[in-house]
Amino acid sequence: MKIVIIGGVAGGASAAARARRLSEAAEITIIERGSDVSFANCGLPYHIGGEIEDRDELAIHTPDSLSKLLNLTVLTNTEAISINRDAKTVLIRDLAGGNESHLPYDKLVLAPGASPIVPPLPGIDLPCVHSLRTLQDMDRIKGDLASSKSALILGGGFIGLEMAEQIHRLGKETILAERFPQVLPPLDPELSLDLAKDLTANGIRLHLSENLTSIEPGLTACFSSGLRVKTDLIILSVGVRPESSLAKDAGLTLGERGHIRVNPYQQTSDPDIYAAGDAVETLDLVLGTYRPLPLGGPANRQGRTIADHIFRGDKALPYPGSLGTAIVRVFEQIAAVTGHGEPFLKSQGIEYRTVTINSPSHADYYPGAETIKLKLLWSPESDRILGAQAIGKDGVDKRIDILATAIRAGMTIDDLCHLELCYAPPFGSAKDPVNIAGFAACNLRDGLLKPTYGIPETGSQIIDVRPAAKSASQPVPGAKNIPLAQLRSRLSEIDSSQPVFTICQMGKTSYFAARILQQNGFDAHSIIGGAHLNL
Amino acid sequence: MKIVIIGGVAGGASAAARARRLSEAAEITIIERGSDVSFANCGLPYHIGGEIEDRDELAIHTPDSLSKLLNLTVLTNTEAISINRDAKTVLIRDLAGGNESHLPYDKLVLAPGASPIVPPLPGIDLPCVHSLRTLQDMDRIKGDLASSKSALILGGGFIGLEMAEQIHRLGKETILAERFPQVLPPLDPELSLDLAKDLTANGIRLHLSENLTSIEPGLTACFSSGLRVKTDLIILSVGVRPESSLAKDAGLTLGERGHIRVNPYQQTSDPDIYAAGDAVETLDLVLGTYRPLPLGGPANRQGRTIADHIFRGDKALPYPGSLGTAIVRVFEQIAAVTGHGEPFLKSQGIEYRTVTINSPSHADYYPGAETIKLKLLWSPESDRILGAQAIGKDGVDKRIDILATAIRAGMTIDDLCHLELCYAPPFGSAKDPVNIAGFAACNLRDGLLKPTYGIPETGSQIIDVRPAAKSASQPVPGAKNIPLAQLRSRLSEIDSSQPVFTICQMGKTSYFAARILQQNGFDAHSIIGGAHLNL
Repeated sequence: MKIVIIGGVAGGASAAARARRLSEAAEITIIERGSDVSFANCGLPYHIGGEIEDRDELAIHTPDSLSKLLNLTVLTNTEAISINRDAKTVLIRDLAGGNESHLPYDKLVLAPGASPIVPPLPGIDLPCVHSLRTLQDMDRIKGDLASSKSALILGGGFIGLEMAEQIHRLGKETILAERFPQVLPPLDPELSLDLAKDLTANGIRLHLSENLTSIEPGLTACFSSGLRVKTDLIILSVGVRPESSLAKDAGLTLGERGHIRVNPYQQTSDPDIYAAGDAVETLDLVLGTYRPLPLGGPANRQGRTIADHIFRGDKALPYPGSLGTAIVRVFEQIAAVTGHGEPFLKSQGIEYRTVTINSPSHADYYPGAETIKLKLLWSPESDRILGAQAIGKDGVDKRIDILATAIRAGMTIDDLCHLELCYAPPFGSAKDPVNIAGFAACNLRDGLLKPTYGIPETGSQIIDVRPAAKSASQPVPGAKNIPLAQLRSRLSEIDSSQPVFTICQMGKTSYFAARILQQNGFDAHSIIGGAHLNL
Repeated sequence: MKIVIIGGVAGGASAAARARRLSEAAEITIIERGSDVSFANCGLPYHIGGEIEDRDELAIHTPDSLSKLLNLTVLTNTEAISINRDAKTVLIRDLAGGNESHLPYDKLVLAPGASPIVPPLPGIDLPCVHSLRTLQDMDRIKGDLASSKSALILGGGFIGLEMAEQIHRLGKETILAERFPQVLPPLDPELSLDLAKDLTANGIRLHLSENLTSIEPGLTACFSSGLRVKTDLIILSVGVRPESSLAKDAGLTLGERGHIRVNPYQQTSDPDIYAAGDAVETLDLVLGTYRPLPLGGPANRQGRTIADHIFRGDKALPYPGSLGTAIVRVFEQIAAVTGHGEPFLKSQGIEYRTVTINSPSHADYYPGAETIKLKLLWSPESDRILGAQAIGKDGVDKRIDILATAIRAGMTIDDLCHLELCYAPPFGSAKDPVNIAGFAACNLRDGLLKPTYGIPETGSQIIDVRPAAKSASQPVPGAKNIPLAQLRSRLSEIDSSQPVFTICQMGKTSYFAARILQQNGFDAHSIIGGAHLNL
């Protein structure tokens, strides 16, 4: 069995390792265009910023150590030029010497990854304008940064945010520009505000809704708004494009956006050719459609699936699809998502309901609890969870991982109510934020909670049920203060002929207040997320 | 609707709060034998140790504030004497004045909790011998500790361990005695060793397999082994007994061990009487049997279920049962469990398979990763997960919460392989420990991994595949060192006529080695958990 693997990082390296475990006899060859295999690409920003001091930490294997460990052939600085599907060969070229040769395969694995998008704008190829994908990119950025006083990051997605934090850590003036009106577009806009605040509070200059038009030597980035940013170094972090031209030229089926289409065993339209990682489309576990999801976890596990299918056939565990679970830390804030957010569901015309709760990361009577904002989205038809997002200073990864597991299991909002999670004061609460989100969602579904999203417009009847002191120190525009404990005795102060909106700090007491009002004949609505989300 | 609730802490307080949200009109009365309601009983050890400085943090509500907030009657220092099910009344007695009265109910909620077991031994009622259940117990212990130089904790379960840590924190000599041969009996023995090491390393005097026989004035605790421990203060933490005599006297059905039996809506054998919390039996979500599980989370959620059923009938979400998810921090170690461990499954005659993996809490190339030992137990018949346990310095709560969610969903070991969890270097890995545990379990099921538990007896052929330096510095008894990278070229040094056992540091490389050996005709077995678990 001859296995040729194109691409030696996440998906390719995983496929090779698992293949060797399943067969000592297979002849395995890895073709890698770059000079490194099996390196920790997710760690690159952290070496630039110095949190990962030792560069060698990122090189999990050298070509030589990988070759020895797995008894395989590793050809680095070698490009795959074309695939001959009939002859079952790959034409490869040694990038140094230019020598070409035909490599025969029984099974071919495509794990070429993706390349950073470089918009074709004037000045984009000036020195000191970089993308970050490889160890060499990292080295170049690190080198140029040494003599830079400032850096501009273009793109406020996961990697752009990590880079902003790390470059700021080096004491450089850091500017972040994003074409969307928010940072981290996978996060719903109202939650992303906390990230923006945190960036600004830490001294990052943040420019939203800015489209780059050109870069002038010097180095000045010019935007369509007229904004001009003078800086010493620019990092492009505006997305990736699948490396699927080899597959396309070989006549393999691609998806709408140019990604390689695969079945659950990661087979392309040619059953002897597999594909994994950033270059493929993956089944959307929530919607059942296909979409690209360039993430490290899926790439690694898809690679494993390929080796399993080559050697175990139908006994292999198929790759079930992806959720898009992702996380980023920016200074003190941690933001994570799984499944889908509100703008995407809206754009797809998918019915959803949503609630956002604020809840402490562990028992609030134990020191160090941090408030987590947790947003849940579910289908009103099936009550199944469609997505979840969270932001806060602690415990965010845990709640999103629990919810990713719940979505994978097809759980409903009812199921979340009774998840039995670790509770001791330093770790959780008797009612975990995930339980609380389930309670709130069920209350909404059952009509106990009538939600209002955001502060209602001027002229609406808003009752702030927080203690008087809190209400005075952080007033809600247009609201009248009636602390919850006084509400039952002050009902006559509220106009029952018009709707009433209750607000509190965290969105919980306002619900209690609305329940009292509803049962006393008022049309009462609770403002989701309270002052903590909306002010 | 008249609702009488006996017990005003976790289950009772939750039932009252939810009942009020569902009905402003209900007449709700809480009867509490103690002087406090709705206090944070899980926080008591942490106030004793000073981590929670302010005692008021633990009193979530005073009787007065709870009464005002929820518009209900709170009768503290009041005992429920008997239930007249025909008349639907409860006879109550004011513990101060001794006045008795009959309180009518439409629905009665029993949430009396449990009382600490006080073994009937000579000297058990001496001064300075305490249990910890109430705020008053806490105050007494805190008071006596002020003049104590040392304290003995009897019982090394969750609360005993927390107390040991907290008393040590106060600079007192701390002794812990446990009648089982290990601390934290819900944790499997081999994992509990890390807790014992950590306790000892921190200067706690630990005595295992010790049965208390008497306490002599002075204060000396005497054990059946002859051990005598002289100390200033003793804390009994040897379990709890359900407060079910009221239910028993009323003729309600009890379980084998004296707990109140309830249906999924928490109704007792009398449909107008509900029960929740430490006094009830709960459905075991893994086995489908019934067992008591005195835990805060279930108590709170059962209370909520009761209110739902009173007001929403069949529309209420039933309580699904419990897993026994629990966690404890002892100095640097965190241990958590969900579902069942090995000794329990064995005692019930339930077939299981198990694997333990060691995996970093986040990407090992990013600073601060801590190794988690994660043990998985599953059914070989259905592949469903029966239990999980973990110990380590970080990320333990997250993995057990993910696995508790997976068990609740009825997931199999295959499902764990492809859970898509948060990955960025500070938070996780491309292959999370939960994925790795799934991989290992599937490899075992599929015959790829032939497991050996523990170091085989003298005379066995053991190959240590770690690098030579590591092998020399921490030798495995009776093992020959052949580093993995040399294995293929040194096969002739291994006797193929007898079984060979491979060992490495973490239990992963030894599996790789065993795969090489198996495919070369050896009967090769990998030692689960490697040196990290077994040395």
